[in-house]
Amino acid sequence: MSLVVVGSVAYDTVETSHGRVEDALGGSATFFSLTSALFVPTHLVAVVGDDFLASDVARLQRRGVDTAGLQRVAGRTFRWSGRYAPHFVSRTTLSTELNVFASFDPKLGAAASMADCVFLANIHPALQASVLDQCARPRFVGLDTMNYWIHGEREALARVLPRVDCLFVNDEEAYALAEVGSLSLAAARILQMGPKALVIKRGEHGAVLFHGGAAETMPALLLDGVVDPTGAGDTFAGGFMGYVASRPVADHATLQGAVVMGTLAASHAVQAFSVDGVERLTFADLASRHQQLVRGLLPAAVQWPAATAAVALA
Amino acid sequence: MSLVVVGSVAYDTVETSHGRVEDALGGSATFFSLTSALFVPTHLVAVVGDDFLASDVARLQRRGVDTAGLQRVAGRTFRWSGRYAPHFVSRTTLSTELNVFASFDPKLGAAASMADCVFLANIHPALQASVLDQCARPRFVGLDTMNYWIHGEREALARVLPRVDCLFVNDEEAYALAEVGSLSLAAARILQMGPKALVIKRGEHGAVLFHGGAAETMPALLLDGVVDPTGAGDTFAGGFMGYVASRPVADHATLQGAVVMGTLAASHAVQAFSVDGVERLTFADLASRHQQLVRGLLPAAVQWPAATAAVALA
Repeated sequence: MSLVVVGSVAYDTVETSHGRVEDALGGSATFFSLTSALFVPTHLVAVVGDDFLASDVARLQRRGVDTAGLQRVAGRTFRWSGRYAPHFVSRTTLSTELNVFASFDPKLGAAASMADCVFLANIHPALQASVLDQCARPRFVGLDTMNYWIHGEREALARVLPRVDCLFVNDEEAYALAEVGSLSLAAARILQMGPKALVIKRGEHGAVLFHGGAAETMPALLLDGVVDPTGAGDTFAGGFMGYVASRPVADHATLQGAVVMGTLAASHAVQAFSVDGVERLTFADLASRHQQLVRGLLPAAVQWPAATAAVALA
Repeated sequence: MSLVVVGSVAYDTVETSHGRVEDALGGSATFFSLTSALFVPTHLVAVVGDDFLASDVARLQRRGVDTAGLQRVAGRTFRWSGRYAPHFVSRTTLSTELNVFASFDPKLGAAASMADCVFLANIHPALQASVLDQCARPRFVGLDTMNYWIHGEREALARVLPRVDCLFVNDEEAYALAEVGSLSLAAARILQMGPKALVIKRGEHGAVLFHGGAAETMPALLLDGVVDPTGAGDTFAGGFMGYVASRPVADHATLQGAVVMGTLAASHAVQAFSVDGVERLTFADLASRHQQLVRGLLPAAVQWPAATAAVALA
């Protein structure tokens, strides 16, 4: 049981109504691996510049993340800067400097290539395919993407999707990918493109799992003290994939549990800036929040007038 | 067991990606009463102009709605016109003509004033208070409002809230009313203002009930064929209040069931223009969709590593 993640490691400058951090550790593969490493050994494949701090490598390693695949090249590390509106109703990207990430060419070492689960974070779909080419025999592959690739690299994305077990997108990306008007129809069309499962990430509104003919919704927790949503989606994926990798089979019950675990992990990520909410996360933290999640689900029970049951069952 | 609703009866012109209707029957009290009348006898108190069609009065009466409180005065009926963006991500109001609604002065007849449940749809809070003054002894009062009154008539609203059992607002309105930054904190502050319960309406993302120290989320159904969301919130309130009025006590279990019933009713409202989705709604329709709702709730079960349970329970 092991996992390899390929994606970005970055320095983020983020401003929310709760404060501001500058050049804070971030990136999809960072949030993902710091979360998934709680569940299974995780190999990180990414690139950083020569400005990347040794202390940040040490943070990953302290969590047990295998950083052998973290390439260090001349130049500056990927930087992203953004500002969130009050109540996080919208996000404005202030700047994106790809820097060394622009010429990222993922190379998997021997251990990483033998990992039985693979997460392809949001990078060019051709690079995602090249990662799969380097994997010996993955039993479960997850893939994240975004509108930039859906619109600009549709063919490359279409070629990699049949090799994917679970696709992670938000509503808008699902509509863009499927080019249809309702979420159920979009999901049906996306599943025809290859993935066996589809997870719609809805941020504070939770997530929807489409798999095996079922469509099931899990609300997010109602949280006080949301500080910074950056990385929530990657943390969700880290909890989801880490859980799948830790289970003997990826059946429907496992995917349901994976959505729950992703939800729990993401709820911690958003309560701190940068990776502060995830790098020391424990199973006890997740279990305690699981009790809160269960308490917050409104039971679907109603009392029907006596005549109704007979009519409805007829 | 009976219910009185005071609000608008209108003619709506609505455009969505699924089509357009002109001067179609609408208004908060219309959607509400056509839904609640399935549960309990409902008295409608509203005003229309002399252009209001006798056939539309007949539609309300066919549903069993008591239209004795539907004032008919010289002038034109309230008209609203709006357009929805694709996937209903936003709504633009094209025009609002208050017409006879501008000088609405709600008068409750003898039967209406004896109703044991009251719903104050979205009108001036001073009018909402005047309706309560006319009610003999209501056991459960629901109130809807909007940012226009929250910002412009804060004091009048503050005076009526202590007389309310359940307030219905959306996230944005809750933030505006409470003037704080997280939903849980906003809910706590709003409940200090008087209402015993608070329902946050989240449209396609469901609803949240705050009551008796609990905060519980119910996702909406994943629907194909959403045609027109107009009136969904009032239909939700109609199902909620109708259910409460039909039950012997308004305890926590009743309010939970009311959220479920509101959710089921609203899911029908949005699948047709105008009131076409609700005016012939049956308990069998609701019960069948209840099965769909239950199937669509992802179970919150996860398998923990053996050591976790002990830690979490410690």
